[in-house]
Amino acid sequence: MQDKTFLMIPGPTPVPESILLAMAKHPIGHRSSEFSNILKEVYADLKWLFQTKNDVFIFTASGTGAMEAALANLVNQGDKVLSLIIGNFGARWANIAQSRGAVVEKLETELGEVITPEDLKEKLAQDAKKEIKIVTLTHSETSTGAKNDVKALCKIIKDHGAISVVDGVTSVGAMEIKMDEWGIDVLVSGSQKGFMIPPGLAFLAASKKAWEIHEKCLYPSFYFDWKAHKKAFLEDTTPWTPAVNLVFALHEALKIMKKEGLENIFARHKKIALGLRKAIRALGLELFVKDDENASYAITSILPPKGISVPDIRNGFKNDFDIVVANGQNQLKDKIFRMGTLGFISERDLITAVGSLEAVLLKLGYEFEIGSGVKQVIN
Amino acid sequence: MQDKTFLMIPGPTPVPESILLAMAKHPIGHRSSEFSNILKEVYADLKWLFQTKNDVFIFTASGTGAMEAALANLVNQGDKVLSLIIGNFGARWANIAQSRGAVVEKLETELGEVITPEDLKEKLAQDAKKEIKIVTLTHSETSTGAKNDVKALCKIIKDHGAISVVDGVTSVGAMEIKMDEWGIDVLVSGSQKGFMIPPGLAFLAASKKAWEIHEKCLYPSFYFDWKAHKKAFLEDTTPWTPAVNLVFALHEALKIMKKEGLENIFARHKKIALGLRKAIRALGLELFVKDDENASYAITSILPPKGISVPDIRNGFKNDFDIVVANGQNQLKDKIFRMGTLGFISERDLITAVGSLEAVLLKLGYEFEIGSGVKQVIN
Repeated sequence: MQDKTFLMIPGPTPVPESILLAMAKHPIGHRSSEFSNILKEVYADLKWLFQTKNDVFIFTASGTGAMEAALANLVNQGDKVLSLIIGNFGARWANIAQSRGAVVEKLETELGEVITPEDLKEKLAQDAKKEIKIVTLTHSETSTGAKNDVKALCKIIKDHGAISVVDGVTSVGAMEIKMDEWGIDVLVSGSQKGFMIPPGLAFLAASKKAWEIHEKCLYPSFYFDWKAHKKAFLEDTTPWTPAVNLVFALHEALKIMKKEGLENIFARHKKIALGLRKAIRALGLELFVKDDENASYAITSILPPKGISVPDIRNGFKNDFDIVVANGQNQLKDKIFRMGTLGFISERDLITAVGSLEAVLLKLGYEFEIGSGVKQVIN
Repeated sequence: MQDKTFLMIPGPTPVPESILLAMAKHPIGHRSSEFSNILKEVYADLKWLFQTKNDVFIFTASGTGAMEAALANLVNQGDKVLSLIIGNFGARWANIAQSRGAVVEKLETELGEVITPEDLKEKLAQDAKKEIKIVTLTHSETSTGAKNDVKALCKIIKDHGAISVVDGVTSVGAMEIKMDEWGIDVLVSGSQKGFMIPPGLAFLAASKKAWEIHEKCLYPSFYFDWKAHKKAFLEDTTPWTPAVNLVFALHEALKIMKKEGLENIFARHKKIALGLRKAIRALGLELFVKDDENASYAITSILPPKGISVPDIRNGFKNDFDIVVANGQNQLKDKIFRMGTLGFISERDLITAVGSLEAVLLKLGYEFEIGSGVKQVIN
C-alpha cells in the first residue's frame, strides 16, 4: 500500500499534515515584510524552545552544519578542545574540531555508556594550566540511545573555566534541556527531530562567554558567521536566502509545540520511551543502554534475541507493517536496532510499535509470552 | 486576494504546482533504497544540467553555502586569489576568500559593466610569477543584471594556469553554461533560480585540476568537504542528512527540465529577457546594463523615469497587481528596480509584466505612448 510508511528512525521523523501543507505553500520573497513577520514569531518561539535569552540563529543546513557553525566560529589552529565521546555524534565533534586545526583531547566511554561527572572532573583536573578552552558533548547520542547528564557536565565545565558546546540535535523539543539554567554556552539542534519538520534547517544559540571566544576567532566560517546571523536576527531576517518553505513549516511546528507546552512535550517523550523500554524488557530482549537514567527519550537501541538477525527484524517491520526502524551505525551495524520515538509521536504509536515488534518476533520464531509487551504499554 | 502573488525577483522564483506537491510528500528515510534511487536519477540529471562529466554535489544550504563550499575546499592561508567583481555577488567571492585567509586581489568594474577579456589578460599578465592560484567570477550578476563572458574569461584563466571558480547561481538552468567545454574548474549554483524549486539546496562540481588544489587544502570545511561528498555521491547518497523534501522537489524539477530540453530552456529565457529589454526601451526607460550582449537573461535592471521613485514603482506593482519586483542592493538601492525572468516563466508572464509596468507608470504620471511596450512583446 502506498504512502503508509511510518518512520521510527531518529530522523526524518513523522510530520503532521498541517506542516506538510504549510511547506507546500508557494514561496514568498525572503526580504518581504510578510516573511519578516514570520521570522519575528519564529525567532521568539525558538528562544522559548531553547529556554534561553540568547538569540537563536537559523541555518539552512543539516544538524552537522550547525555543529560546524559552532566550532567554525570558536576554534583557532592549535586551540585545545576536549571532546566527550559516547558514540558517533560525539566523535563528530572531535572530527570537526580537528578539521579546524584544533588539538583534540578525547574522553571516551564504551558504547551504550555515558560520561559520568566524576570522570569529567578527573579529566579536567589534569588540565592544571587551563589550556582546554572548549568542551564538546552530546545530549542524546543517536548512535547508541544514551543520554548524557548535560546539566551536571556543564556545571563542571563552567567551574573549570572552559565553554560547553552541546549537540542537542535529537534532544531539543523532545527532552528537557534548559540552556540558560544549565549554563550551556553553545547549543545546536536540527529540524527533522523534535521539531517535527523535514530536514534542512539547523539552529544555534551562544552565550556571552562563547561570544567572547568568537571575538578571537581569526577565520570564522562566512556562511555560518555568527556576526552576520546576529545582525540579521536583530532585523527579523537572515543573512543569506533561507529555505523559505522549511521556515513556513517551522512556523507551523512551533505553534503546535507552544500549544502543547514544553512540560507536556517532555512528559510525552519520557512516557513513550520508558514505556517502550518496559515492553522490551517484558519481551525478554536486552536494551543497549542498561539504566533508564542514562537512556535517551528520543531513541531506543535494542539487541536482537539470540539467533535472530537485525536485518530480519528490520525487514519484518518494513515488509509486514511498513514501519522503518534503524540499524546500528558503524561497529554497531547488525548488533542493535534502533527505534525512534521523537517528534510527532503519541501513545497510540507506542502500542503500534510494540504490537508490531511482537508480531515480527513471533514470525521469526522467537519464543515469548504473546502480548506481554503490549500489556506493559496499555496498562 | 490571497495566494495570487507573482514573484519577479531573482529568487525565490515561481514554483510549478507539481513541484510544490512533490515537496509536500511525507519525508522518507534518507538512508533507504527508495531515496537512493531518487538520488541516483538526480545526480545523473545534474551532470546533464551542468554539462559536465564531473560529479555534481548537493549541499543543504543556500547559494552562499555553495560559494563557501568552493573556497573552503581550495584556499589555504596566504594563497593569492583574484576576484573579478562586477557587483555584490562578485564581491562576496572576495569576502569568502578573505574569510579563509587568502590574499585577495580585485579586478573591479563600474556597476552595470562586465569584465572584458582584455582587462583580465592584462591583469593576469602582471602576475609573472604565477602566484594567483584561483580566479573567482560571476556569470549572471544578480545585483546589476550584467553577464560576464564566462567562456572567454575561463579560457584566459586556463591559459594563465590558475583555476576558475564560477558563480552560476542565477545562470545554471537559465542561460547557456557548459562546464566542461568552457573549461570551468569549479561551478556552483542554487535551487531557487533556474531550478524552479524553493531555496535550500545548492550545487557544486569541480574539475580534476580543482581537485588537485583541494588535495593541498589543509583545513577544508567539514560540512562542505568534497571528499565526504564524493564518497557519498558514488554511493547514491549524501554524507549528512539532506533536505529530503527539497530533493523530492528537485527530482520533479529535473524531470520537467529534461522534458523541455536545455536548448529550449535557454532560448525561452533569452527570448523573454530580450523581449523585456525591447519593451523597456520602447517605453523610454533606461536599462542599467546598456548592451544586450552583456545582459543577463535571468534578471533585468531598470532605471525609473525622472521624477518617479523606485519604491513608488515597486508599490504600484505590489498593490495593484500583486507582482513582486526587487529594489537595487546597497548603493543601487532606490536607483534601479530589478525584474527577474527566470525558472518557471513563460511568454505569457512577459506580457503580464510589461502590461503591468505600463499601468504602474501611467498611474504614477509618466508620459508615454500607452501600449508601446506591450506591442514589442506580442509582435
